[in-house]
Amino acid sequence: MSGDIERRGLMLVLSSPSGAGKTTLTRGLLDSDSGIVLSVSVTTRPRRPNEVDGRDYFFVRPDAFEDMVQRDALFEHAVVFGHRYGTPRKPVTDALAAGRDVLFDIDWQGTQQLKERAREDLVSVFILPPSHDELERRLRARAQDSDAVVAARMAKAASEISHWPEYDYVVVNSDLAAAQAKVRAILEAERARRTRLIGVGEFVAGLT
Amino acid sequence: MSGDIERRGLMLVLSSPSGAGKTTLTRGLLDSDSGIVLSVSVTTRPRRPNEVDGRDYFFVRPDAFEDMVQRDALFEHAVVFGHRYGTPRKPVTDALAAGRDVLFDIDWQGTQQLKERAREDLVSVFILPPSHDELERRLRARAQDSDAVVAARMAKAASEISHWPEYDYVVVNSDLAAAQAKVRAILEAERARRTRLIGVGEFVAGLT
Repeated sequence: MSGDIERRGLMLVLSSPSGAGKTTLTRGLLDSDSGIVLSVSVTTRPRRPNEVDGRDYFFVRPDAFEDMVQRDALFEHAVVFGHRYGTPRKPVTDALAAGRDVLFDIDWQGTQQLKERAREDLVSVFILPPSHDELERRLRARAQDSDAVVAARMAKAASEISHWPEYDYVVVNSDLAAAQAKVRAILEAERARRTRLIGVGEFVAGLT
Repeated sequence: MSGDIERRGLMLVLSSPSGAGKTTLTRGLLDSDSGIVLSVSVTTRPRRPNEVDGRDYFFVRPDAFEDMVQRDALFEHAVVFGHRYGTPRKPVTDALAAGRDVLFDIDWQGTQQLKERAREDLVSVFILPPSHDELERRLRARAQDSDAVVAARMAKAASEISHWPEYDYVVVNSDLAAAQAKVRAILEAERARRTRLIGVGEFVAGLT
């Protein structure tokens, strides 16, 4: 327990291709740990029927997005398949200042930009599916899709996966409970990292 | 779970002053995790009544120790209060080659030498006692000692504690179960570190 020592909040990024179970891992982590909050991205892409504004994304019009860019209100932003995605800055800095950690469910482009802006505070995890067959099965299970659609999704997944060398940790999601435990362990460990524990000097001065 | 991916073994160092509960944490970790083995140090200091040769230390005569140094059979060695301490090399390299992790219960001098010899594979954790009063209580509880003896132990503890900035992680042992969980999380997380997972490239090639 390093709970006695003042520390900087950390930014935990989970990235993965579709079909690796990242959304389930994200929800599981948020449910099991009150010390971490989700960064909700802003996007110009249309809301899907199962999505909730403010929970999955903040859905905005292109001019509102551009206005946020101009006001430097975004930590990072990128274009993916013609739609813009970004991370609002204020919720992140507010959470970190309050000693809370922030979870990011973003892709490799967003991760690269966050790295440039928050090197020491960033912890990045890449989630991999357990096998080619299982990945294909999960991508197909999403909907009753044609082989061509599934092949296109596999190609997109392969492109995402090629960015694993840019991450600090790699977790294979063969078993959900084991993968959850691994991600929780990464968060717990990173909270005990010496460079993050800004209060150790003061704590130690009181010991001796 | 990254159990599907080949990885290098890691070397986990736990250091602390006397009275911080390190021995209990070490035993707890070894009992709960079959993937990690303890590196038993060799020393020229006399065996204490409660110590077992080959479990706590390998107790050897000075000439045998010097012979190990000459044969380069030690990973690191140092002199502490006139006695020599060292880490036999072969058990460590054998365990790492077999894909197991190795736990080291050594002081800051040994840690510094291991760092020089095994930079990437080394993970170092410094255990701190929860408070000045608790540290003093634990050092006194060891035996019915005079104030002068306890003061000398406190001074030695303070000297050890001054080396915390040389470690990767800092864990305060206020609550044993919480400290155990923290050390286990550090081990689990470090096992998922990308630089350690030498088989990811091959694994990913099979995915896509």
